[in-house]
Amino acid sequence: MARNTQVAADHQAPPVTRLLAEFVANHPSRGWSDAVDHEAHRTFLNWLGCAVGASGHDAAIAALAAVRMLQPAPQASIVGRADKVDMASAALINGISSHTFDFDDTHLKTIIHPAGPVASALLALAEHTGASGRALIDALVIGIDVSCRIGNAMYPDHYDRGWHITGSTGTVGAAAACARLLGLNADQCQMAMGIAASQPVGMREQFGTMTKPFHPGGAARAGLMSALLAQQGFTASPRALEAPRGMMQTISTKNDWREVTEELGQRFEIALNTYKPFACGIVVHPSIDACAQLRAQGVRAEEIARIDLRVHSLVLELTGKKEPADGLQAKFSVYHGCAAGLLFGIAAEAEFSDAIVTRADVVALRRKVVAVVDDTVDEASADVLATLTDGRQIHVFVEHAIGSVQNPMTDAQLEAKFHGLSDPILGSAATSGLLAACWKLGTAPDVANVIRHATPA
Amino acid sequence: MARNTQVAADHQAPPVTRLLAEFVANHPSRGWSDAVDHEAHRTFLNWLGCAVGASGHDAAIAALAAVRMLQPAPQASIVGRADKVDMASAALINGISSHTFDFDDTHLKTIIHPAGPVASALLALAEHTGASGRALIDALVIGIDVSCRIGNAMYPDHYDRGWHITGSTGTVGAAAACARLLGLNADQCQMAMGIAASQPVGMREQFGTMTKPFHPGGAARAGLMSALLAQQGFTASPRALEAPRGMMQTISTKNDWREVTEELGQRFEIALNTYKPFACGIVVHPSIDACAQLRAQGVRAEEIARIDLRVHSLVLELTGKKEPADGLQAKFSVYHGCAAGLLFGIAAEAEFSDAIVTRADVVALRRKVVAVVDDTVDEASADVLATLTDGRQIHVFVEHAIGSVQNPMTDAQLEAKFHGLSDPILGSAATSGLLAACWKLGTAPDVANVIRHATPA
Repeated sequence: MARNTQVAADHQAPPVTRLLAEFVANHPSRGWSDAVDHEAHRTFLNWLGCAVGASGHDAAIAALAAVRMLQPAPQASIVGRADKVDMASAALINGISSHTFDFDDTHLKTIIHPAGPVASALLALAEHTGASGRALIDALVIGIDVSCRIGNAMYPDHYDRGWHITGSTGTVGAAAACARLLGLNADQCQMAMGIAASQPVGMREQFGTMTKPFHPGGAARAGLMSALLAQQGFTASPRALEAPRGMMQTISTKNDWREVTEELGQRFEIALNTYKPFACGIVVHPSIDACAQLRAQGVRAEEIARIDLRVHSLVLELTGKKEPADGLQAKFSVYHGCAAGLLFGIAAEAEFSDAIVTRADVVALRRKVVAVVDDTVDEASADVLATLTDGRQIHVFVEHAIGSVQNPMTDAQLEAKFHGLSDPILGSAATSGLLAACWKLGTAPDVANVIRHATPA
Repeated sequence: MARNTQVAADHQAPPVTRLLAEFVANHPSRGWSDAVDHEAHRTFLNWLGCAVGASGHDAAIAALAAVRMLQPAPQASIVGRADKVDMASAALINGISSHTFDFDDTHLKTIIHPAGPVASALLALAEHTGASGRALIDALVIGIDVSCRIGNAMYPDHYDRGWHITGSTGTVGAAAACARLLGLNADQCQMAMGIAASQPVGMREQFGTMTKPFHPGGAARAGLMSALLAQQGFTASPRALEAPRGMMQTISTKNDWREVTEELGQRFEIALNTYKPFACGIVVHPSIDACAQLRAQGVRAEEIARIDLRVHSLVLELTGKKEPADGLQAKFSVYHGCAAGLLFGIAAEAEFSDAIVTRADVVALRRKVVAVVDDTVDEASADVLATLTDGRQIHVFVEHAIGSVQNPMTDAQLEAKFHGLSDPILGSAATSGLLAACWKLGTAPDVANVIRHATPA
C-alpha cells in the first residue's frame, strides 16, 4: 500500500525543462563566439581520438559481441573498426570506447566528461541521417551546455553521494543534442529531455571496471532513443528535471537552479572543457608535469637519488598506490606517474602498459619517490624537489598542469595526442586525414569524410 | 577537480551482489512449493493480459515507431500485435504495454509492479533463444525475488525520495532473470546484476505520462542487455549493489540488508504478488469494491440519494479529483470509482473510457458521493454508507478489497480480467487458447504456443 509521504516544498524551481527546451530548439546556429566554436571542434577531435584508440579494447569487443546478439542493422560505424551496427548501439559502443582509457575531456568544475555521451550519440545519428557537420557542431555545443549546466546545479552533492556525474547528466545532454540534430521543436525537445530524465546512468563504485566506460555509452544510447521517442510523440512530464520528484531533486539534495538558467545562450560550458595530456586521473597530472619538466631541464633518471613530492591529501587518497603490479593499477599511482614523467616526458596509454609498469628501471625510479601530504598545496598543483646522486637539488613547482583551463593543450599537442591514439589503429596517413576532417567539420556537408577516415581499410 | 568526499562507513553490508548471484545461478529448478509455482503462472498470465490489452495504445505505437528507426531484426514478438523486433526492443515495448493501463501486478509491501521488467525481458529472450517454459517460470520466480528483495531493503526511503521503485529495482531483477535463463554461472550473474546496478530507471514525477510505463519497459531492456553483456565478459564491480557508492546506498539512505539475505531461497516474494481487479490506483480499490457490493445487494443507481464515503487521507490526496474530464483523470477520482462500482460492478479499462466518464448518469451518480477523511480507516479499507431516495440506509465496510493478499482474485477472476483485456485484441477463441498456454507454461518445451496465441491472425 502506498504510504503518505512528504516532499520538500520547492516553489522556487524555475521551469528548467522548458527553458532548456527553448534554448535547445531555438538557439541560432553558430550563435556563439569563434573561440567557442573552435573549442567544440577540439572537443570533438579529442573525443574521436580516444574512441578510436580504445576501439580494440576488451570492453568494446565484449559490448560489440552483446550488441551482435540483436542482429543490428548496419546504420552507423564503430570508429576505429570496420563494424557497423544500428545507430543506438553505435552510440553505446563509441561511448564506451571514448572513456575506456580515461583519457577523454573534463569539465573541471563538475568533473563531467562531457563529450562521451553527447558526441557518441551525435556522430551515430548524424551518420545515419546525413546531417551536416555544422548541425553536429551546433548540437554538440548545445548538448554539452545542457549536461554541464545540470551538473553545475547538482555538484558536488550529487557526485559525493555516489553518482558518476558523466552518465547521470549525460543522458539528458545527449537527448538534448539529438533532439537538436533532429530539428525537433521546443515541445518535443522538452519531452526528449523529460524521457531522458528518468534514465540517469552510473555509480562510482564501478570505477576500475568496464561498467565505468559503459556509463557515457549507456547515456549516449538512452539520450538518442529519448529523442527518437519524443519525435514519435512519446510523452514525459514537462517538469521532469526540476519537479520535487523529478530527476534533479531525486538524485541530488543540492540544486542551484541559477546554474542552469543564468546567461543561458550567452556563455557556454564547452568553453571550459579541458583535455588530458596524460592517460590517468586528473589529480596525478601536476606531478607528471613537474617530473616531465625536470626531464626537460636535462635531469636523467639514472642521476636521481630521491624525489620529494608534496601534494594535497586527495592525491594520495586517490592515487597512493606505491607498488602497482600492472597498467591498470599504475593509473592509481602518483609514484608511477612521476617515474613516467621523468623517464619519458609523457604518460600516454603506452606508458601505462604492463610491460612499462613492470620494467626494472621504472620500478627502481618510482621507489625513489617520497610523497608527503601538504594541504597548503592545491589539488591542482604539485611541488617536486629532485635530489641527484651528486648532491644537487632541483625544485619544480607546477601550479596548473598542462591540460588545465589555465594552461590548455595547444592544437598541436591535441594532434600529437590524437596520433598517439589513432596511428596504431588507423595508420599515420589516415589519422592525418581524420584530423583534417575534424578541423573542417563545421563546414562539412555531412560526416562522411570523418567516417571514411575513421574506418580501417 | 575532484573533491575530497566522505561516504558513510558501511562495514556491515554483507556481500549482497555475490549472495544473490549464487542464488540466481544455483537455486534448483522448481525449488519451491506448488503454491509459489502456481503464483508464478498467475503472475505471468496477468502480465501478459495487461500487455496484450494495451498493445494498441498510443504509448506502444510511439515506442514501436521509435524502435523502427533502428531497423530491428525480427527476433521477438510484440504481444497483441503482428510486429516483431529485436529481443531487447520487444522487452521494451511489451514492458511499456504491460504498465500502460496501470492494471498490472503489485507487490504491496513495496508497491513494485514486479512482472513488468522481469517477464517482459524473459519472454523476448525465451522466444529468441528457444528456452523452455520451465526455464522461463524458474527465471521469473528468481528475478522477481531479486527485485522485490532489493525493494524491501530500500523501501520506503527510496520511494519517498522520488524513485519509481518498479523501474529502479526492475533493471536488476530483469538482469538476474535473463542471466538465469541464459544459464550464466554465478560469476557472470554477479556481473550481470552489477552492470544493471548502474541503470536504475524511473522518477515519480513522470506519473500520468507515457514515461511512467516506459520505466518497466526500459528496465526490462536494460536488464536483458546487462545479461548479454555479462555473457560476453563485460565486467562490473562485484559489490555494485551494496558498496558505499554502489546502487543501493546511492539511491536510498535506508538499506536493511537482512531483507535481501534472510531466508534467501526459502521464501519467495512472488508468493506475495497481487493482481488488480480494477484499472486504477490501488488506493481506490476498497471504495470500488464496497460500491460493487452495494450493487450485488440489489441497490440500483437510480435509487441513490447520497453515498457517504469514509477513507484514509491518502485516498483523497492521491485520487480526490471530483469532476474528472476524461478517462485518464477518472483514474485519479475515487468519486468515479464509486460510481463505476455501483453502475457496473466493475472498473476495468472500459469503465475508464472517455465515453463512460462523461456519460450523464455516471456524472450524476458520482456527484452524489460525499467523501470524508478518517485516518482511523486503514489505507486498504473503505467505509460506505448509501442513503436511498426512500430513506433506507445500507452500510458496507471493506477491510481488504478484492485483489489484496488477504482477499486474492481467484484464477477464474484472473481469467475474466484477461478476457476483458485480450478479447478486443485477439478475439475470444485465441484468448482462451492463450490462457490455456499460460497455465501450461511450466511444462511447455518452449514459448512458441504462447507467442502463437498472442499474435493476431
